[in-house]
Parts: sequence; structure tokens; C-alpha cells
Amino acid sequence: MRITCLRDGARAGERLEAIAARTEGGRMREEEARVAAILAEVRQRGDAALLDFSERFDGLRPDPLRVPPERLAQAWHDCPEPLRRALDLAHDRILAFHRRQMPEDLAVTGPHGERLGRRWRPVQRAGIYVPGGRASYPSTVLMNAIPARVAGVERLVMVTPPGPGGEPNATVLAAAHRAGVEEVFRVGGAQAIAALAYGTETVPAVDVISGPGNLYVTLAKKAVYGTVGIDSLAGPSEVLVIADHTARPAQVAADLMAQAEHDPLAAAILITTSEALAAAVPAAIEAQLKRHPRAAITLQALNDWGLIVVCNDLAEAAALSDRFAPEHLELLVADPDSLADRITHAGAIFLGPWSPEAVGDYLAGPNHTLPTSGTARFAGALSVETFLRHTSLIHFNRAALEATGPAVVTLAESEGLHSHAESVRQRLGTPDS
Amino acid sequence: MRITCLRDGARAGERLEAIAARTEGGRMREEEARVAAILAEVRQRGDAALLDFSERFDGLRPDPLRVPPERLAQAWHDCPEPLRRALDLAHDRILAFHRRQMPEDLAVTGPHGERLGRRWRPVQRAGIYVPGGRASYPSTVLMNAIPARVAGVERLVMVTPPGPGGEPNATVLAAAHRAGVEEVFRVGGAQAIAALAYGTETVPAVDVISGPGNLYVTLAKKAVYGTVGIDSLAGPSEVLVIADHTARPAQVAADLMAQAEHDPLAAAILITTSEALAAAVPAAIEAQLKRHPRAAITLQALNDWGLIVVCNDLAEAAALSDRFAPEHLELLVADPDSLADRITHAGAIFLGPWSPEAVGDYLAGPNHTLPTSGTARFAGALSVETFLRHTSLIHFNRAALEATGPAVVTLAESEGLHSHAESVRQRLGTPDS
Repeated sequence: MRITCLRDGARAGERLEAIAARTEGGRMREEEARVAAILAEVRQRGDAALLDFSERFDGLRPDPLRVPPERLAQAWHDCPEPLRRALDLAHDRILAFHRRQMPEDLAVTGPHGERLGRRWRPVQRAGIYVPGGRASYPSTVLMNAIPARVAGVERLVMVTPPGPGGEPNATVLAAAHRAGVEEVFRVGGAQAIAALAYGTETVPAVDVISGPGNLYVTLAKKAVYGTVGIDSLAGPSEVLVIADHTARPAQVAADLMAQAEHDPLAAAILITTSEALAAAVPAAIEAQLKRHPRAAITLQALNDWGLIVVCNDLAEAAALSDRFAPEHLELLVADPDSLADRITHAGAIFLGPWSPEAVGDYLAGPNHTLPTSGTARFAGALSVETFLRHTSLIHFNRAALEATGPAVVTLAESEGLHSHAESVRQRLGTPDS
Repeated sequence: MRITCLRDGARAGERLEAIAARTEGGRMREEEARVAAILAEVRQRGDAALLDFSERFDGLRPDPLRVPPERLAQAWHDCPEPLRRALDLAHDRILAFHRRQMPEDLAVTGPHGERLGRRWRPVQRAGIYVPGGRASYPSTVLMNAIPARVAGVERLVMVTPPGPGGEPNATVLAAAHRAGVEEVFRVGGAQAIAALAYGTETVPAVDVISGPGNLYVTLAKKAVYGTVGIDSLAGPSEVLVIADHTARPAQVAADLMAQAEHDPLAAAILITTSEALAAAVPAAIEAQLKRHPRAAITLQALNDWGLIVVCNDLAEAAALSDRFAPEHLELLVADPDSLADRITHAGAIFLGPWSPEAVGDYLAGPNHTLPTSGTARFAGALSVETFLRHTSLIHFNRAALEATGPAVVTLAESEGLHSHAESVRQRLGTPDS
């Protein structure tokens, strides 16, 4: 392993920005055009196009597309008892936290007795994308389906690619059952996103699509954004650990590797005030790599996108972290609360030695779908609000229109909008025409 | 004027869907490519590209790009007193309503004493696009700048095209001063969006871009979405009026025209249970068109995208309205409150005879930036949340990790993520390696 180690703050800052931008550019325009062609064909040819693309990209025609509902219950039943209990615990904790997120309606009475409000309602249909292959995770099902259910979404549709045998991952199906998802279609890729956005004979069109995916899925989500709502555009995952002398090298090593093992493009960064820790962590990683089932992926990610920075104090560490705006930020320091207050940009902050990121991935409660690639500057975790929208309510009375109407007329006339003014004048008994 | 009038619910539903889809498709791919080229060039050449594109599209080189700050104060000072008072009233009412939207942080203690939370923070920099030409409105400035200020955004940047004389609209500058915007750049179009997303020598890069614009601006916002956050992708404006026998034809006519006068692509729809109203409204429109400064635009919009539907009862009217999911919905009926409860999809609902849409455009309080083209199915008004993002906080203690850690290990192992499990085992004193 040859993880980069820097001691110069300026160079560390530059390297952090390069890591944040690691998936930018490239052959994107070409891939965007390919995705646009897939979307257009599914929109036109429906199920037939879904089957054709699945054959081309997944090597089989998943006909019929829908997974029989009894298969979901069966998968749950077949799930080993400890795993079922763990899914139960995760489900209940995620549910409890997301219930607390439900926003309240707003009802305000203005100075003239007029009523103003904001009313939240769930979207009617939501589609959840659950990846297959390297990233086929039951936790993804829970983290997407539960917020939608808490929001009150009527119809929840899941798409997930068929595995090599033609069936989706069994634990993914079990988790779908546990989360109350009944409609599952075994189709993945950009074609699955197209099906959710436009609908086909078999797959219903939805209002919001959430869930992670590969580059093609992400480009397809961006392309259909506006036709439907989406949760976010996710890039490869990342963790940044700020640690002082109180942190244990083996714990830090495991936490960095827990990110690196996801994906060769995952980023794992340690910023520490302790020279001793910076020296000990690489050795601890080497030790833990020895018997690691995903050693190759983990090693590649650490070599390409790993970084250890030694800095002077925690203020410098916080500033460097904000420059990266990490998806996951661990604070393995003596006083994590006060350091958290100094952090401006992070998707999720894990405070103290008992909060490894993995608890957030599975069951702490908050969502594990978090902003990547520096987007924590403007975005947060997937939440109940992802599946809600609000409607403004404006209920004026005569007194309110009499008091404010003349100002409306003045503003409308300044903008040259004659009928805007006239709509008020007609009501105030002073029509122009 | 030849506004379409339908009495058949099924045909009305089809026509409503056709109106909602009126700007779909077309030469989009070609225009997307053109926008992509503009974005790439601004990203590479910065200010020089901004000046070149402005020369090409606006016919002049706005050098220097920045509007002198004292020019904003001057514009406010030069503003006629009634307009200044109207802007003041609008400002204060919009401010009061948006302050009520501020979400609260969440702090939850779990069963083992672990602490979980969600913390809201403003984005650091926001960019506001204010169109020029036909749609250069001071109200746009207030409706975008005030939510950003309420959110607590540190740095607020406005871009707006130079007018024919090289200066932006004076009332737009006055409104910027009133709303506390100090940085204004006189550049518009896709190039202005590029400048806000990537930054140039003169224009700072921002975290969120909001504000309406033409097709090129909208495509540019979609293209940079993911690099920055955006408010929404706006299409042409629309109003749907549900009216019964209590509605006055001249008021309904003015309200429909107040939408149509915006844009030849604006949609104005009346759904009524009253044959008498359906017959009287076209005549009232004809009368009000006689002395109308924007008669040509208004007429074209009404002819192309106007619609009057006569239906049997308000339940049918509500169902048709939901099929359209209007940006603005007026309820000119005897009992607007109970009808509003039956509406599922709408950006904003205006209840009763004293709430013409124009009050919402200018000063009622809620935002006038609303979801168009059926996107009210999944989106709501621009709001304080547009300029906020949240960070999850996870602070476990030993008891919490001891209680839940084994489930994390089980779930991680089921997903084949060895280091995820190991990060917990290391802390529980049962390391694998």
C-alpha cells in the first residue's frame, strides 16, 4: 500500500480538491448521448425496449418483469433469523428517526385577517432504484423505502437488476418485504430509470425517483429530472476522519477501509494532529488488508484516492475538511461536540469513538444517502421531504385586498402587466375597462 | 379571440395534458448541445467569454461586468415614492412569511442515550438570475433574494442582462437595493449561469442558483445541477381557475388574462360548473382586450393555450385540475376551503373572490416561484429551504454500540463489507485481525 501522506496545508488543500473532483469530466458528453438514446427508446417502445436493453447489458431477458409478490414474502421467510432481527432493528430505528422529520403545515393570519399557509403532502408515487452487482445492499432498500412510507406515498415501486440467475438479490427482496414494498421489477440501468419516469405497459410512471446507481443510472436521473423529482446525483462514496492523539490506529484503519472497500473510486482521508497516529495507521491498514475479501478494491481506492494529512491543530483540520465538504465526517477527537460546531460542510458527522460510520450506514437512524463530491455545500441527506411537496395557500378577504391592492396595482403597472393590475381593480370596483 | 371551450370531461382531460406538455421535446437536444458549448467556454475563458457571448446575444460588451454598488442605492433613491412604498410593503410581507418557514434543528436521544440530530445551515453563496426583456420584474428580485437572506446566506450575487442602453432595468436595481443585494453583474443567458456555477475572475462561484429564465437559462441550470444546487426548472406560467355561479365574469376574465399577458406560451384555463359564466367570460375578455398594452401576446396565449371547460360538479373540476397539476389554482367558488381540501396537486391555491393571483405574484407573502408544467406533482414553491441544507449528526456511546453493534456486523457481513463489520468489532474488543 502506498497511501499519500502530506504535511503541507496548502498542498493538502489542493489534493483534497483534486480528490473531490475525481469523477468530473471525461467522456461524459458521449455517455450522456448514449443515455438519452436509451431513455428515448424506452419512452417509445416501453416493455419491449426494457427487455432488449436488459438482454444487452445484463445478459438476460427478465420476462415477466415483475417479481411475484409472494416471492418477497418468501425471501423474508428464508432469511436467516439473525439477519431478520438485524433488519428489524434497522427498520425500526430508521423509521423512528424519519418520523421526526415530518414538517408541519404553516398557517398564518395576516394583519387584515387574511390567511396564508403552506401545506405539505406526499407525492403519490415513488420509484426506488436498488443497484445490483457490487453494490446490491438491503440497507439501500430500507434507507429509501422507509422515508417514502413515512411521507405517506401511496404507491411505492422498486426496480433492481436481475442477478446472473435472473433473480434479484434475495436479501434485497427480503428487505423490500420488511419495508412494505410490494411492487418490484427486475430491471436496472438507465432503462429502469426511463421506465419509472415515463411508465411502460408494466412499470408505472412515478413522481419521484430515489436511490443510488452507476454512472449511467446517475446520468439518466439527471436527464429525467424535471419530468420527475429525484433525490440527488450521487458520486462515489467518501469518508474524512479528523483524529487527534486519542484515536486508536486500528479503529481509524478500519473506518478508512470501510469506505475504500466499496469502490475503487471511493475516497478515504485522514486529517490528524498526531504524527504518531499518521505513522501507525498505514501499518494497521496493512495488517487488516491481509485477510480481506475485497482487498484488491480496498487497496486500489486507498492508493488512488487515499490521503493522510498531518496538521498543526484542529482549526486547520476543520478548514481542510470544509474545503472537501465530505459525505461522511468522523470526529475521533477528545471533544467532538465543539469540533462539530466548527464544521460548515458535511453530509453526516459521526462524533466520538463509539460512532463508526458503519452504524450510520445501517441503523443509527438518519439516512445513509448523503451528498458526495463536495455537494454537501448545498445538499443534505435523503429525507422525508424528498417524498413530500408543499402547496401555498392564499386566502385574502375584502379588507386585505383593499389595504394592499393599490400597491399591487402600482407594482403591476411598473412591470407593464396591465391585467395583473386590472384583476385587482375589478375587485375594488375601479375597473379600467 | 377563439378560446377553446369543451363540455366533454374526457376530451377536456386530454386537452389539459396536451397543454401541460406544450413545451416538451422539439429541438431540445440541439439546444442542449449549444448550451453545453457556452458552459464549457465560460468555464475555460471566464470573463472574456462572458463579454463575447453578451456581445453576440445582447448586442453589447458589458465591461465592466459589475454594476457599481452606488448605482443600486441611486436607483432606489430615483424610484417614484408610490413604487418605493409598494416595494416596501411587498418586501416586508414576503419577509414575514418566509421567516415562518425556517425549519428547526432536530435533536433526538435514542434508547441507549445515543444522540441523533439534523442541523440546518444556510449555503454560503447564492446566485440569483433575474431575466431581462419581456420578463424583467422587480418582484423576481424580492422573491429570490428575501428567502436567501432569511436563510442566512452570507454572499448574495445577482446576474441580470444589460438592457439596450447597457444598464439593467432601473426598478430591478432598486429592488436589489431594497432586498440587500450588493453584488450585481450585468450579464444574462446561459453564460451568466455558467459564471455563477464555475466562477470567473469577476463573478464568484456560488452554491445555489435560483431564478427564472428563458429556455437557454433553464437548460443551463439543468446542466450545472449537481455542480451547484438549483431552485427548479421553470416552464411558461399557467393559471387554472375553478369557478361556480358565484364568480364574476369580468374578474375571471382579468385573472385569465393576467396569466396570458406574460408570454405567448402561457396557459389560462377556466373550469366551471356554470354555463352562464362559460358564456360570459369570452365576451369579458374581448372587452378587456380592447385597451390592452400587451394585447397581441395575450391573444396568442389565449388562442393557443386557453381553455374553458364546463363540467357537472366541483368533484369533476377538482379531478380535472389534478390531472393538470396547475402552477396557480384559483378557487372562485362559494366554499373554497372545502374545495381546497380536495385538491391534490397545485403550486399555490388562491381561495375566494378576494385573492386574485396578482396578490401572490407581488406581496401576499408566499413565494411566486412555483412549479409549472405538471411538476406540482412533486415540487413546491421556492422557499427558505432552497437556500439551506442539513447535516446529520450521529453521536453513539458505548452502550449504544454494544447494543446495536452485533446487528451492524450481521448486516455488513450479509453485504460482504468486511471492514464495515471490522470497524464495529475493533471497538467492541473483538477484532477479526
